Amino acid sequence: MRLRNKPWAKDMLRENDQYVIQDPELQKGKWNEVFGNNNPIHIEVGTGKGKFITGMAKANPSINYIGVELQDSVIVGALERILEDPSPNVKLLNQNAEELTTFFEQGEISRVYLNFSDPWPKNRHEKRRLTYKTYLDRYKELLIKNGEIHFKTDNQGLFEYSLKSFSEYGLLLKFVSLDLHNSDFEGNIMTEYEEKFSAKGQRIYRSEVQYRS
Amino acid sequence: MRLRNKPWAKDMLRENDQYVIQDPELQKGKWNEVFGNNNPIHIEVGTGKGKFITGMAKANPSINYIGVELQDSVIVGALERILEDPSPNVKLLNQNAEELTTFFEQGEISRVYLNFSDPWPKNRHEKRRLTYKTYLDRYKELLIKNGEIHFKTDNQGLFEYSLKSFSEYGLLLKFVSLDLHNSDFEGNIMTEYEEKFSAKGQRIYRSEVQYRS
Repeated sequence: MRLRNKPWAKDMLRENDQYVIQDPELQKGKWNEVFGNNNPIHIEVGTGKGKFITGMAKANPSINYIGVELQDSVIVGALERILEDPSPNVKLLNQNAEELTTFFEQGEISRVYLNFSDPWPKNRHEKRRLTYKTYLDRYKELLIKNGEIHFKTDNQGLFEYSLKSFSEYGLLLKFVSLDLHNSDFEGNIMTEYEEKFSAKGQRIYRSEVQYRS
Repeated sequence: MRLRNKPWAKDMLRENDQYVIQDPELQKGKWNEVFGNNNPIHIEVGTGKGKFITGMAKANPSINYIGVELQDSVIVGALERILEDPSPNVKLLNQNAEELTTFFEQGEISRVYLNFSDPWPKNRHEKRRLTYKTYLDRYKELLIKNGEIHFKTDNQGLFEYSLKSFSEYGLLLKFVSLDLHNSDFEGNIMTEYEEKFSAKGQRIYRSEVQYRS
């Protein structure tokens, strides 16, 4: 994603700490208190401008959502979306995905969403892909038993890589679509990126995998 | 595949018993004697008119190939191809894939090829798909330890189904291409069907999976 510098973003994120949780490591093990209920919590890693997570929060009021995004100039778009039309069941973390396990306790999260993650196509950058095994380790450390990863992308190379990485890790492939927008899958919430690229005729790939106990 | 009735096929297959092995259950455990060497043996299940298996035999003289095909009016095309340009390392079986384990002993086969298998798209026909778990059991029973299945198809639904079936079975996905003809995969031997459908712009999907020990 191309970044525009937004020098005011950091302040705006900090000022809206009811939505953008500051010092999330202090909430570890207590996210049900943050949301004020015991509903399942789903996180999106790389939430971008938040179209997916806010759409999911509206569509599924009995699930709590947390969007994690490192770039402050991007996640501020998600915050603006929430401020325009608030939902009680969505929070944001302006944090690095590498540190996820410092924010959440084992079993605190029920599902991880990865949408249109950076493909990092060069072999030497494999470790940065959000479906690389060290990330699969991290998700496992915070997910419930038999927790799931739901992943979509338009990038063929990243999808092929991820299918292999999931298999090597021993994850169970429960769902796969090689052309999501021409399938009978219901309830798809599009990301901004997805709207743009599928309109150009780009195929969208989607999978659901589950940790085996 | 549309079948043309060829009343002469059965006789022709029987008469060429140096290529079309009769009573293959008698060779169980002795296929190295049939080929006269100890080279690895790869089988293609559903070999059709034999373009793939004969091409592979020419390209890889130190591998032995066996093409299995139930329809006599189809496999006779493979026989004609062999008679025109014989290879010592290819044999045919005019047999039902359900009976594979009566022809081969555990460890006698190193690799199974499945090419453009019948997709059997209706749910109630799932058990007939050559990547259904009972078939994966059969292949396991004749393969070496860590043996592989190499599978290609143009049928998106069958490929999606097969990826899930492989995962559920615990097979390791070692290779996957979601657009074989636009990939850097080398040494692809096309089937007749593949030539026809890829020329129409149809994507070809390909995977390699391995039994875990």
